[in-house]
Amino acid sequence: MNDLTSRLTSRHAHLDRILEQHQLDALALNPGPTLTYLTGLHFHLMERPVTALFIPGKPPIIVMPELEIAKLTSLPFIVQAFPYGEDPETWSVVFEQAALAAGINGRKIGVEPTRMRLLEYRYLKDAAPQARYLHADECLAQLRMRKDPIEITAMRKAVDIAQRALQATLPSIGAGVSEKQIAAELTIQLLQAGSEPEFPFAPIVSGGPNSANPHASPTDRPLQLGDLLVIDWGAIYDGYVSDLTRTFAIGQVDDEYTQIARIVAEANAAGREIAGPEIGAEEVDRAARDVIERAGYGAYFIHRTGHGLGMEGHEPPYIRAGNSLSLLEGMTFTVEPGIYLPGRGGVRIEDNVVITLDGAESLSNLPRELISLPI
Amino acid sequence: MNDLTSRLTSRHAHLDRILEQHQLDALALNPGPTLTYLTGLHFHLMERPVTALFIPGKPPIIVMPELEIAKLTSLPFIVQAFPYGEDPETWSVVFEQAALAAGINGRKIGVEPTRMRLLEYRYLKDAAPQARYLHADECLAQLRMRKDPIEITAMRKAVDIAQRALQATLPSIGAGVSEKQIAAELTIQLLQAGSEPEFPFAPIVSGGPNSANPHASPTDRPLQLGDLLVIDWGAIYDGYVSDLTRTFAIGQVDDEYTQIARIVAEANAAGREIAGPEIGAEEVDRAARDVIERAGYGAYFIHRTGHGLGMEGHEPPYIRAGNSLSLLEGMTFTVEPGIYLPGRGGVRIEDNVVITLDGAESLSNLPRELISLPI
Repeated sequence: MNDLTSRLTSRHAHLDRILEQHQLDALALNPGPTLTYLTGLHFHLMERPVTALFIPGKPPIIVMPELEIAKLTSLPFIVQAFPYGEDPETWSVVFEQAALAAGINGRKIGVEPTRMRLLEYRYLKDAAPQARYLHADECLAQLRMRKDPIEITAMRKAVDIAQRALQATLPSIGAGVSEKQIAAELTIQLLQAGSEPEFPFAPIVSGGPNSANPHASPTDRPLQLGDLLVIDWGAIYDGYVSDLTRTFAIGQVDDEYTQIARIVAEANAAGREIAGPEIGAEEVDRAARDVIERAGYGAYFIHRTGHGLGMEGHEPPYIRAGNSLSLLEGMTFTVEPGIYLPGRGGVRIEDNVVITLDGAESLSNLPRELISLPI
Repeated sequence: MNDLTSRLTSRHAHLDRILEQHQLDALALNPGPTLTYLTGLHFHLMERPVTALFIPGKPPIIVMPELEIAKLTSLPFIVQAFPYGEDPETWSVVFEQAALAAGINGRKIGVEPTRMRLLEYRYLKDAAPQARYLHADECLAQLRMRKDPIEITAMRKAVDIAQRALQATLPSIGAGVSEKQIAAELTIQLLQAGSEPEFPFAPIVSGGPNSANPHASPTDRPLQLGDLLVIDWGAIYDGYVSDLTRTFAIGQVDDEYTQIARIVAEANAAGREIAGPEIGAEEVDRAARDVIERAGYGAYFIHRTGHGLGMEGHEPPYIRAGNSLSLLEGMTFTVEPGIYLPGRGGVRIEDNVVITLDGAESLSNLPRELISLPI
């Protein structure tokens, strides 16, 4: 049994235990990270429905386009495939055959609310109308939250690629260069550094007033002396992503900007330092938020401190007030406090952290202080 | 009223007419091309639900993260926003308030099956349990299928970018170069030629036996003399995509490969030539397929002839047997017949076509004959 085979086998066994624990009879997935996690399969989801059914004790069942059936030949385990042709009129029958083979009618089926589309859901429900479809967010979090060493290695590599790409981009940044130009250069550098082309997200490059909007899109505005510049970017390697943020000063900036940059760096450090096994996700948020609140900027830290990271850009565990989930070895997430002064500028510093046996390690290590550009 | 305002106003009026015609009281959308088409808004959809409600005669209603509310400031029309904070426990109430303001309970709501996720659907259904949720694929096809001149211009530009990127990539292709290396180079060239970084799809670069799989992913296999090489790639400009395919010979290839390349080029031409206003989508498929069938390769043309193209990589109209939809001026789609010889190699030639007043124009014009590489 080779390495991939044994990893997938152990994931299937893990899934079976989780389903039993949650009293679910099956899991229905459409393409996305969980399906890739369990099978290695990738689909580019468009108008053709794809659904896989995992039933403990049976080989997985998959309904998919005949056109893509070659994807199954490299699978290291048996699947029962129900391929369909190009005429949508014929698809319902294929779903019915699959549901019959799976024996899911009348059973409790877990579904993935952030991935399952109404397209697949309708076919499933029509094929197994007596089944109960239950949102399985928690099962799937439990399945995927703790990363194994091979996953951590891929994430480390994704961080390394992102860091090298940013360093290669910095020399081209200065007053007069637009956010869009920087985003384009950074994207090219990400690919040249070895990122896979299916980026987890397009880089956020926001300068001056735009940097006060945490989810800004790059614009044609040229950077000006005195701007803050937030760059939030990531790479993907072997299906695992990185998601980093650093903030820069364009030339000399307002003293208050220098001060909030120092406060955010301190909040980021506080979050990373408290993180460890058996620490609650909310405690990490609290530690970072406390620093910013004590400095009098609590009202300007308008988002949670972080989110899980892995095959998805955002996944559990969410690092926010009210989430009492205990962090455990192998969980990976961002620590990304920020201060946003509306209409003026913002600072965010984001690292990617993994929980270790006795604490937490930051996979990212680019300088966190406010560096003035051009270098 | 500026140009964007008037375009969006006319799209909203068009939507209202379509909803009335289909006896729908409202349309519920989550982020995706249709929402962007109607509002200009972009969201990167992850774990936070986003839903917009369009009700004829009312301003659109949107439920979204507070964090992203700045996106609404640039909208050229009024929306009623229902923002929520970081604690998922509070989201249901916000959806309920939005549903109440929209007055959708007990009404007929159109939903988009390829985009709406169970996440948003559950919040909607819980907030308006007496509403009927109906799949609105046809309404949305009707809304977006015919492109206006500004949309066509963007698609023309996306085709131009893709063509220039391929030409810049060709010199680096030859025996010994891997599919992944070519895909990486092509991706960089796409960005340098001006593509936006959110590609419609990652390039398919498949050589030798892999080229017989229409939906192959690039591998580390180095190209060998005698291989066929299929490159299926696209760019995105101003939110509109291109999707092209050309096939190359690596050095000298088998005579049969040269022959199937000629047949596929002829099928591609036949599809483009018959296309025009009031021609059925299935007739375009028939024209291309006839050429391949007459040449004795019908069993090796294993997919439909094409698909619509615009803000999505695949969208209506689908160019396939059984689709009697009449093509109309402004519709845009691919013509992409292929012949795939299992285990040996494949040929596909794909152009992007727009229906004109009296025929069809191909937006793409790279040579279609089998060119041998290195050049």
